[in-house]
Amino acid sequence: MNYSIIIYIIGWVLNLTTGLMLLPCATALIYQEKQGFAFLITMGFCLLAGVLLTFRKPGKKVFYAREGFVTVALSWIVLSIAGAMPFVISRCIPHPVDAFFEVVSGFTTTGASILLEVESLPRCMLIWRSFTHWIGGMGVLVFVLALLPLTGGYHMNLMKAESPGPSVSRILPKVQSTAKTLYEIYIFLTVMEMILLFASGLPLFDTMCMSFGTAGTGGFGILNDSCASYTAAQQGIITVFMILFGINFNVYFLIMTRKIIHAFKVEELRYYLGIIAVAITLITINISHLAGGLPNAFRQASFQVGSIITTTGFSTADFNQWPDFSKCILVLLMFLGACAGSTGGGIKVSRIMIMFKTVAKEFLLYLHPNAVKKVKMDGKAIPHEVVRSTNIFMIVYLVVFATSALLISLDNMGFTANFTAVAATINNIGPGLDVVGPAGNFSMYSSFSKIVLCFDMLAGRLELFPMLLLFYPKTWQKF
Amino acid sequence: MNYSIIIYIIGWVLNLTTGLMLLPCATALIYQEKQGFAFLITMGFCLLAGVLLTFRKPGKKVFYAREGFVTVALSWIVLSIAGAMPFVISRCIPHPVDAFFEVVSGFTTTGASILLEVESLPRCMLIWRSFTHWIGGMGVLVFVLALLPLTGGYHMNLMKAESPGPSVSRILPKVQSTAKTLYEIYIFLTVMEMILLFASGLPLFDTMCMSFGTAGTGGFGILNDSCASYTAAQQGIITVFMILFGINFNVYFLIMTRKIIHAFKVEELRYYLGIIAVAITLITINISHLAGGLPNAFRQASFQVGSIITTTGFSTADFNQWPDFSKCILVLLMFLGACAGSTGGGIKVSRIMIMFKTVAKEFLLYLHPNAVKKVKMDGKAIPHEVVRSTNIFMIVYLVVFATSALLISLDNMGFTANFTAVAATINNIGPGLDVVGPAGNFSMYSSFSKIVLCFDMLAGRLELFPMLLLFYPKTWQKF
Repeated sequence: MNYSIIIYIIGWVLNLTTGLMLLPCATALIYQEKQGFAFLITMGFCLLAGVLLTFRKPGKKVFYAREGFVTVALSWIVLSIAGAMPFVISRCIPHPVDAFFEVVSGFTTTGASILLEVESLPRCMLIWRSFTHWIGGMGVLVFVLALLPLTGGYHMNLMKAESPGPSVSRILPKVQSTAKTLYEIYIFLTVMEMILLFASGLPLFDTMCMSFGTAGTGGFGILNDSCASYTAAQQGIITVFMILFGINFNVYFLIMTRKIIHAFKVEELRYYLGIIAVAITLITINISHLAGGLPNAFRQASFQVGSIITTTGFSTADFNQWPDFSKCILVLLMFLGACAGSTGGGIKVSRIMIMFKTVAKEFLLYLHPNAVKKVKMDGKAIPHEVVRSTNIFMIVYLVVFATSALLISLDNMGFTANFTAVAATINNIGPGLDVVGPAGNFSMYSSFSKIVLCFDMLAGRLELFPMLLLFYPKTWQKF
Repeated sequence: MNYSIIIYIIGWVLNLTTGLMLLPCATALIYQEKQGFAFLITMGFCLLAGVLLTFRKPGKKVFYAREGFVTVALSWIVLSIAGAMPFVISRCIPHPVDAFFEVVSGFTTTGASILLEVESLPRCMLIWRSFTHWIGGMGVLVFVLALLPLTGGYHMNLMKAESPGPSVSRILPKVQSTAKTLYEIYIFLTVMEMILLFASGLPLFDTMCMSFGTAGTGGFGILNDSCASYTAAQQGIITVFMILFGINFNVYFLIMTRKIIHAFKVEELRYYLGIIAVAITLITINISHLAGGLPNAFRQASFQVGSIITTTGFSTADFNQWPDFSKCILVLLMFLGACAGSTGGGIKVSRIMIMFKTVAKEFLLYLHPNAVKKVKMDGKAIPHEVVRSTNIFMIVYLVVFATSALLISLDNMGFTANFTAVAATINNIGPGLDVVGPAGNFSMYSSFSKIVLCFDMLAGRLELFPMLLLFYPKTWQKF
């Protein structure tokens, strides 16, 4: 294991964290909030540690996949600890485990909260909560890659470990330019949403927080009722942008480079939009008697479907009160998730597509044992490696899911709550059903369960392997 | 598709059904129950249809995998319809869908019931319910294979389609002798249990019903409280035999042929027994305060663990009242299931082992991309085909599970009930949690949901593919 380079990169993550905290600091200054000092203290710590760790450039350049996984996992843990410090120091969330849970939930763009209400929080804390979504959405190491002129062949191993989806396609030959282009698209869309929300009459502070939360597909709101009290227009804007941020960013790159026809031919995009349309239709019909007519039902259904499939987690209605059929659709969407290469979580549409296609091929093989058929996506054969790693992903996912559900069941919150609490965290959504539904929160779970769920959030965001390899003894052995 | 041979085999299944109904007929005669006539009428129908269908020997001998799947799936459906007729004719279960559900639940060894209470049923009906478990446990086509001197190469395709587990190993070179040996072991163990239960003071009729239910890992009882009112000794005998019938029958064949050391070296057996021991220990500790002391807790825990992991479904305690942790362990055991090549259902211990071993190999590959490692079981490398079909099984399993849960959620029974109703039927267990818990039953579900659950029971018993291929258009196309 090349420890020197891991330490060096973590040092840069800490330096970056210092810079990112300038935003809540400035907010505290503008609104004259004394909790701003908590950020200053944290920044001092981070900068000191960061400078010390990056003081010496690493000698050995060896950087394999395992260094990539370990670096990413440790970076996210360090980032979350640093991000939680202001909450603890300012006593806004006094218990360290609670603060850690809240910030992990932020960075992993989950949006699950242990807070009973958020409106009493100072503004610097609110914007930091929402900003963690934005940072975590695209990935902090992608950010480091975009900024740092790192040399050597380890860019791809880092990016692979942090980016969501079954396979990372470099949209540009150089990793640094890919990272930069991704952030350009990300910033452009975020600013677009801000402009529209601001135009709809929302104050600037609110537009910033809500846009950060939407862009990262996070879900932390700044009102106790999430998005229920916004106007229909504002809810509509948020719905559209949630769905936009759940699309594979390659599609935007194709549009940028004027390959618009290609963009709309991407299979994953068509399935993603198709599933959204079907889900909205079914739920609209199912809840129309509750919502008082079809138009209102459509509005509620489209917001909730957009929010859950993209794993954002905002809500305009307490779907825990909906009929089982609608709830079941939402639970299935929780697992499905958004497109690969977006900021959304879950299993990902393309993974599910690969699995369905593999099964269809197998069915044909049962009937015609000598048939030769390739599993294809977007007209190209899917490499055997991708199919295999998709299957492995699924198995590991189920094992982590089952183990977590068993561990948190010690708290006796009921089967539905336990099951959906794990589903909502491992898929980075936020709300589940029952006590963890849109009207509830995660505060009743014990500290032990909260740590288990933090693990699930990080494992879900980093696509399982980096977090698991951290606890795999052979990772640390010499070879 | 070679229809003539499919029809011919289904004809033999009907002839066999006629013979099997002699048992309830004799029971009706002994206890002078007029419902026996319902069996006589059904037997008349079955014999007539059977003789007509088997009158002409099929000309074409072509019999591929797809003919095997279709034959097995159709045979089980025909068998279930024939088996349900006596219930409808005698008005014991007047509604055809209910009767079909009850009999599918019997043949698939699920043991889920729509009856509010069973003690008022005539004895001929009770023994038929339990006898369906015994027939379905080893498989009706295995029975046909053991009896019929079928020529041609299609034995293996039939046996593969009906036998549980990731791969069928012929324990003897000839399929007919394999089928006979399996039934010999099956009958021997069943008779052993009968003798022990009879010695413990149970009446002959009860020992027969309970032994049939245990042997097939079914779960239909003849008392309203399942097994709660039996003595500790009787519960102990049933616990041991449930666990014995969940073991791969190859192990018994090894013991029969005096390869006892080999038998105890079978990896699946060791994991199976290990998991049982761990589950019993954890639940005993978890429920000791409820059960009034450790000895009683141990007795309840071991019975329920044995019943659930082998997917039998008898109960001595209402585990729906247990703490979440114990309930969660039981739900996980529901999915795990028994050993391959046993009469039990679920995903099967060996499949889970293959999946874990594949993941361990993949973890190593992440760390050392050039490592060469084979996935092994019992010292032998697992063929790539088996690993792949295990992965495919898992995906199809999840899809069937999710679709079924969505469809039955239209009945609004709550998330826990819906989830565990599907888990209990697709894994052929019987009771779930909440309204379908040990103290509840499936009568509240609509006819539509019952048909969905019937499909799940059949799909679960036949390991998914035969039932699904029935609804796959390409199965019926010429090629």
